[in-house]
Amino acid sequence: MKRVSATETVKYLKKEVGVCGWVNRRRDHGGVVFLDLRDRSGILQVVCSSKLAKDIKEEDVLAINGKVRKRPPEMINPNLETGKIELEASRIEVLTKAESLPFDLKTQELKVSLPTLLDFRPITLRHPKSKAIFRVQEEIIDSFRKNMKDLDFFEFQAPTIVPVATEGGAEVFPVKYFDYTAYLAQSPQLYKQILVGVFEKVFTVTKAYRAEPSVTTRHLCEYISLDMEMGFIDSWEDLMDICQILIYNILSDVKENCKEELKMFGQEVSGLGEPVPRLKLREAQQIIFERTRRDNRKEPDLTPEDEKEICQWAKEKKKTDLVFITHFPAKKRPFYTYPDPEDPEYTLSFDLLYRGIEIVTGGQRIHEYEKLVKNITKFGLKKKNLEFYLQAFKYGMPPEGGFALGAERITKQILGLENLREASFFPRDMGRIDQRLTTLKTKRKK
Amino acid sequence: MKRVSATETVKYLKKEVGVCGWVNRRRDHGGVVFLDLRDRSGILQVVCSSKLAKDIKEEDVLAINGKVRKRPPEMINPNLETGKIELEASRIEVLTKAESLPFDLKTQELKVSLPTLLDFRPITLRHPKSKAIFRVQEEIIDSFRKNMKDLDFFEFQAPTIVPVATEGGAEVFPVKYFDYTAYLAQSPQLYKQILVGVFEKVFTVTKAYRAEPSVTTRHLCEYISLDMEMGFIDSWEDLMDICQILIYNILSDVKENCKEELKMFGQEVSGLGEPVPRLKLREAQQIIFERTRRDNRKEPDLTPEDEKEICQWAKEKKKTDLVFITHFPAKKRPFYTYPDPEDPEYTLSFDLLYRGIEIVTGGQRIHEYEKLVKNITKFGLKKKNLEFYLQAFKYGMPPEGGFALGAERITKQILGLENLREASFFPRDMGRIDQRLTTLKTKRKK
Repeated sequence: MKRVSATETVKYLKKEVGVCGWVNRRRDHGGVVFLDLRDRSGILQVVCSSKLAKDIKEEDVLAINGKVRKRPPEMINPNLETGKIELEASRIEVLTKAESLPFDLKTQELKVSLPTLLDFRPITLRHPKSKAIFRVQEEIIDSFRKNMKDLDFFEFQAPTIVPVATEGGAEVFPVKYFDYTAYLAQSPQLYKQILVGVFEKVFTVTKAYRAEPSVTTRHLCEYISLDMEMGFIDSWEDLMDICQILIYNILSDVKENCKEELKMFGQEVSGLGEPVPRLKLREAQQIIFERTRRDNRKEPDLTPEDEKEICQWAKEKKKTDLVFITHFPAKKRPFYTYPDPEDPEYTLSFDLLYRGIEIVTGGQRIHEYEKLVKNITKFGLKKKNLEFYLQAFKYGMPPEGGFALGAERITKQILGLENLREASFFPRDMGRIDQRLTTLKTKRKK
Repeated sequence: MKRVSATETVKYLKKEVGVCGWVNRRRDHGGVVFLDLRDRSGILQVVCSSKLAKDIKEEDVLAINGKVRKRPPEMINPNLETGKIELEASRIEVLTKAESLPFDLKTQELKVSLPTLLDFRPITLRHPKSKAIFRVQEEIIDSFRKNMKDLDFFEFQAPTIVPVATEGGAEVFPVKYFDYTAYLAQSPQLYKQILVGVFEKVFTVTKAYRAEPSVTTRHLCEYISLDMEMGFIDSWEDLMDICQILIYNILSDVKENCKEELKMFGQEVSGLGEPVPRLKLREAQQIIFERTRRDNRKEPDLTPEDEKEICQWAKEKKKTDLVFITHFPAKKRPFYTYPDPEDPEYTLSFDLLYRGIEIVTGGQRIHEYEKLVKNITKFGLKKKNLEFYLQAFKYGMPPEGGFALGAERITKQILGLENLREASFFPRDMGRIDQRLTTLKTKRKK
């Protein structure tokens, strides 16, 4: 018998069908058993005799044949796509037996702590709200890709093992690469720039790695970076123009295509279409100072509290959840960042904040070979280790720039999640790679 | 003035336009200079006075304004999309100066050795034939994604830092992960299986890593893996059925959408639509023995020569470039591979060969918890390190399986490239991460 999905059964009233899935819930009423069968499409109520349902427990995997029929009026469930029908089972095959779950998967909210959520990730992901998070993330990534392709950008796959740490400093993972030490890429930056010299406009959906030495709610050691880079820009503000359109398109797509998921999290996508304010870092800090008397006006970056405050300001004054912060100090940005010709202490760089957190970072890059070489030396990096990258500039690179979006952060902000880990299938942090590191037998010798 | 691309100029006959790009070639004829301007769309001939073209050299980056006009009949170039027109330049702005190239980029074939091709990758990628390779690769990946989505598979982003080496043995890169040793994923295998328990049908475009300790023409240390996995299979042959359709669709898309690129490499996509023969490993070895008298009938795998020979057989006898090899010995496949119930020394596994090389590997997986635990012990792995993965099976997993395609290998075979490195933007091998490792200052202390 042809298998149909749980929600497709509504099209087969009074017909025989086959369905497959997991037992989400079992209820016994005298001689009758109700099984809620869960598959990737949703939930279907199955009715059968206790004899047929003998020994069947929650999370068992079943193949069921039966006839689709209307539920009695008093049994109709308006919250369920299949709420008006049920399947009268004639045959149940147990494909796989399951052990008893360590917690209840059936509640509307999954009532477990974050460590438990992650310790039991293969199981907690089966909860509808967990799945919904990743449907939204898939939509964000698809929307990014579609927008870039519509703008005639070339998609490439960026390498992730790199010979040098380029975004600066300590927060990089070393890889034992035969007789050498290599690193995990902190971003696809150098490669997307090289490819501007080849395809002019490029993007990639890739992994970036940061050896974040502390546990926060907003960092992951491995995250999804949505990167774009383009040549022949007239001004670095072109980049913010494209970024604004892109973000609004992504948010619109989520609003349009993830209605159910947004509802589950009680969230709305708001403020679309408003122009996004663009503030210099120093202007933003002045506004924050005036609003809170917190004086960070000489700091080289916004603190997490500052990011929240300036987004609050944008919400109140400009009716938008988004705000660009521009002109970060040169010493706080990587060596390739273009200095502001009007004040070279600052750079033609920007962050985009969304509901209190940075979700995009970007800017114009230095495209002149001599200038770039000078900056490499100034930043204390070895030119010898960057010769490969420098070729792209030695042999002619147009004025160019780009930006990168963090997919998990956008997901978290749209759905109002508390912790970035909830927006990563298998989050890696200081204390965990799937299992807690302390439970793994892989401790290094000092 | 609005910028148009080089090939778009044909739509602007007798109009003023702006174009941007690199100088592909400069030719001087008395007082007149011809510049071939190259941008991502193609080549445009620009005509100007020697005064206007003063000091302009190849690979300089220019912005040019001018008027589009018909070429004189004797100047028409039928091989060029813009061959009937040229741009009469009125203004040339040099955006960036370039140094003289170390080799000639203008020849139809790029006449450099493989080491030079890779040493100067940021520049050699600018050659039209290099770009064409990655247009084909982009098409392959897009086609894979589109086919999977059409079949209602969920796309996920697989983690690449993993806690244990799962595909066996030595060929794995260790990562210094805070106080622990982690590894680079040899495949997204365990994660796609876990997610079958959540979404039933999943796929990912991801990176896989193999510390391949030798230099061959068919291996990369970091490669693009196109992975799928699905639950509720009726038989492991379902997987080969889907694989066959998928590969034919990918090849058809390349045939349809990469005509120009195929022509450049003198290649055709052939034999589409023929059923793909399915041979057990032992049957294939018998055929090879009978054809060549080379007796590998007791070997646990095909040698590279065997793969070529059996594809030659398929071409001659079955009119197809593809052949499935099935039933590999259990000891040569990973611990999760399903044993053949009729002969447990062998497995329900397959490879797909294309024009002499394996491009897909797949099979049914063990979905029963107890059986899987037994096999983990049998393979000498620590159950403790796989507890996370095992949850997916402890709490109910349907019969399932999947396969993975190597994107670079398919690209190489379609275009008839000699070395897999040509099909990777930035190939990593024992001797190279962008630069040759010997030129980098990153040698580890013993």
